[in-house]
Amino acid sequence: MNYGLVSQTIGKIMLITGTLFSLPVFVSFIYSDGCAMAFLLPMAIMLIAGFFMTRVKKEQKSLYIGEGFLIVTLTWILISIFSAMAFVLSGAIPSPIDALFESVSGFTTTGATILAEIESLPKSVLFWRSFTHWIGGMGVLVFILAITSNGESKNMYIMRAESPGPKAGKIVSKTKDTARILYLIYVGLTITETAFLLFGGMSLFDSVVTAFATAGTGGFSVRNASIAAYDSAYIDYVTGIFMLLFGINFTVYFLILTGKVRDAFKNEEVRWYLLIILISTLAITAIILNQIGNLADAIRQAFFTVSATITTTGFVLTDYGVWPTAAKIIIFLLMFIGACSGSTGGGIKVIRILILSKLAGRELKLAGSPRTVRSVSIDSKAVNSEIVRGVGAYFIVFMITFSISILLVSFDNLTITEAISGVATCINNVGPGFESIGPVGNFSEISMFSKAILIINMLLGRLELFPILALFSPSLWKV
Amino acid sequence: MNYGLVSQTIGKIMLITGTLFSLPVFVSFIYSDGCAMAFLLPMAIMLIAGFFMTRVKKEQKSLYIGEGFLIVTLTWILISIFSAMAFVLSGAIPSPIDALFESVSGFTTTGATILAEIESLPKSVLFWRSFTHWIGGMGVLVFILAITSNGESKNMYIMRAESPGPKAGKIVSKTKDTARILYLIYVGLTITETAFLLFGGMSLFDSVVTAFATAGTGGFSVRNASIAAYDSAYIDYVTGIFMLLFGINFTVYFLILTGKVRDAFKNEEVRWYLLIILISTLAITAIILNQIGNLADAIRQAFFTVSATITTTGFVLTDYGVWPTAAKIIIFLLMFIGACSGSTGGGIKVIRILILSKLAGRELKLAGSPRTVRSVSIDSKAVNSEIVRGVGAYFIVFMITFSISILLVSFDNLTITEAISGVATCINNVGPGFESIGPVGNFSEISMFSKAILIINMLLGRLELFPILALFSPSLWKV
Repeated sequence: MNYGLVSQTIGKIMLITGTLFSLPVFVSFIYSDGCAMAFLLPMAIMLIAGFFMTRVKKEQKSLYIGEGFLIVTLTWILISIFSAMAFVLSGAIPSPIDALFESVSGFTTTGATILAEIESLPKSVLFWRSFTHWIGGMGVLVFILAITSNGESKNMYIMRAESPGPKAGKIVSKTKDTARILYLIYVGLTITETAFLLFGGMSLFDSVVTAFATAGTGGFSVRNASIAAYDSAYIDYVTGIFMLLFGINFTVYFLILTGKVRDAFKNEEVRWYLLIILISTLAITAIILNQIGNLADAIRQAFFTVSATITTTGFVLTDYGVWPTAAKIIIFLLMFIGACSGSTGGGIKVIRILILSKLAGRELKLAGSPRTVRSVSIDSKAVNSEIVRGVGAYFIVFMITFSISILLVSFDNLTITEAISGVATCINNVGPGFESIGPVGNFSEISMFSKAILIINMLLGRLELFPILALFSPSLWKV
Repeated sequence: MNYGLVSQTIGKIMLITGTLFSLPVFVSFIYSDGCAMAFLLPMAIMLIAGFFMTRVKKEQKSLYIGEGFLIVTLTWILISIFSAMAFVLSGAIPSPIDALFESVSGFTTTGATILAEIESLPKSVLFWRSFTHWIGGMGVLVFILAITSNGESKNMYIMRAESPGPKAGKIVSKTKDTARILYLIYVGLTITETAFLLFGGMSLFDSVVTAFATAGTGGFSVRNASIAAYDSAYIDYVTGIFMLLFGINFTVYFLILTGKVRDAFKNEEVRWYLLIILISTLAITAIILNQIGNLADAIRQAFFTVSATITTTGFVLTDYGVWPTAAKIIIFLLMFIGACSGSTGGGIKVIRILILSKLAGRELKLAGSPRTVRSVSIDSKAVNSEIVRGVGAYFIVFMITFSISILLVSFDNLTITEAISGVATCINNVGPGFESIGPVGNFSEISMFSKAILIINMLLGRLELFPILALFSPSLWKV
């Protein structure tokens, strides 16, 4: 383990992320909410720590996967702790464990909150809370890669450890250029959404933070009633469609920008993603129509909720807790499917579900005629058998983690549905679950122990399990 | 597809199973319950159909896996239909779908019932209902193999298709001998349990049918309150321990009988099975102690419920629905773990859970140091990579089937917990679920559509998915 290099890299991240803390300081001055010090203190610590950490001498060794995993895991834990410090110091969230929960929920773009009253919080805190979604959405380290320049191979390891989906998107040959292009698309889409929201009569502040939360597929809102507070079908559809857009593999936008529109629409994952959204929306519309009593409202609520769930954003338009069980089960299953790989969304990812389904189909065929050898194909190309194996392993590790987590939180004072949906919504980075932690509830009442388990689940889900869990393998530390 | 051979084999099964219908006729005469005709009619149809089916000329082709799958699937469906016919004709269960549910629940050793009032049923019906567990426990076809003689290779395919666990147990070189030895152990244990129950003051009828239901890990009781009705700690422990014994791989008993006691206790699956039972019992005892107020009662209820659940028997001693959530989640997870391979129990099986866990551990190690190649070991021997792949595929197919089934039954008037636990208890062949379909409830109130889905789930679970699902692969029919 090249600790010098780990220290240098994390130090650099501390310097840059520390600098980002100046943004809420700025917001605090504009609104005179008196919270500048709450952000200046962690900022100072990060800058000083970063300064010394970048001074540590690195050994002449290459960066291996292990270092990538350690850097990514430590980075996400550290920035969450400093962000939690700001929440505590500002007085917005006095309890440290609650502040950490909110902070991890922000960076991991989960959007599960322990706050019941949001609107009365200082503007700078609200801004930062939503901004953590925006940073976390594309990945903290991809952001660093986008603005700094380093050797090539080692950054690939970091990017792989942090980026969602079975393989890191390699749009252009250089990691740094890839990161920049991805970030440009990200910024462009965020600005576009802000403009659309402003056009709908939303205030500038609300537009910007809502766009942050949509872009990162996070789901924190600055209103107690989430998106429902704006009471506008236009806002609902703008948010609903932008959630959907941020759940699409960003490679597709790159292809469209470079004129390869046909290739963009050939993407099998995106097609299935859109098909699942269409079918789920129609199914839920049919299920809730009777209860809602109005087709337009039923479609709007169904589409918004489907989009909010499959993209793992978790914005709330309506209390789906009162919908019939079939609608709730569809929402529950969508949490696991998640968005496309290479998007800002969470969950297992559509591509993995697709590979798992094709794998299941192949195995059933093989069971009947074992001498036939077939490979799993995506986009009409055979998928590398190592990737197929990796997806299978991912699913197994996911389900084991999921089961153990449910068992652990069940010792709390929760119902079966709360325990299962609480873990599901956190490990898939969605936000709301069912019953007391549902769309009109929050996570404030659960025990400190359960909050800790769910914090770990959010991190495990966002970093896709392996970078964190592999750190517990002794062989990783021997290299 | 060698249809002639399929017809001949199923015909032979019809002849033998038809003959078994004479047992309830005999019981009906003893108790003069007037139900003899209800069993004689399906018996006559089976014998006549069997006679003609065995006359179909077989082609000179070997038996492939496809034929095995078709034979197994059709056999289980046919015997369930004839058994349902008896339930309807006797007037015990007038609704055909309910009768089929009860019948499939019997043969698949699930033990989920649509009956609220059991004690008033005719004795012959009660006898047959429990006897279906005993036939289903070891497998209908293994029974046929035990008493008939056929070519070697083809029976192996049938046995593989029907026997639980990743590989068919091959105790001795000849399939027929294996089947006979297994059945002798099965009969011996059943008689021993009957003796123990008689000794505890249970009536002969109740002792025999309770032993049938325990042996098959089924769970149908002839009392409305299940095992709780006997109100005896002795009966509770006898049933609890025998459930546990029937959940152990029968190879272990074979080794003990042939003096290889050391080898028997080296079995890793059995060790984990016993360890899981021990830990779960201790955990649940601690969780419910406060509520029960008495250590001896808490241990007895915890042990009985753990044994009833992991062995997928589903006998009921107490309403665990009122236990704290943590206890319920342990019960829920035990449903999926299930018993040992090569036992009469259902669920995913301890050996598969063990292989999946080791696979997950290996993949996490590989993620950190990819150049290390490791194999998964069971009983200190490397597991064939094809078996490991098969176990992974089984789990994926299982979870996809589970998710789709939950979605389908959720259209019924069920809660989320009822939908999830209903499918879980049926696909794992346990019996009771939670809430209205829990230990003090039954499946009578769910819709016809949901009953059909759960019937399919019970069959899929008992035959371990592939023999049924592979029939939908067109390539299987081309051989």
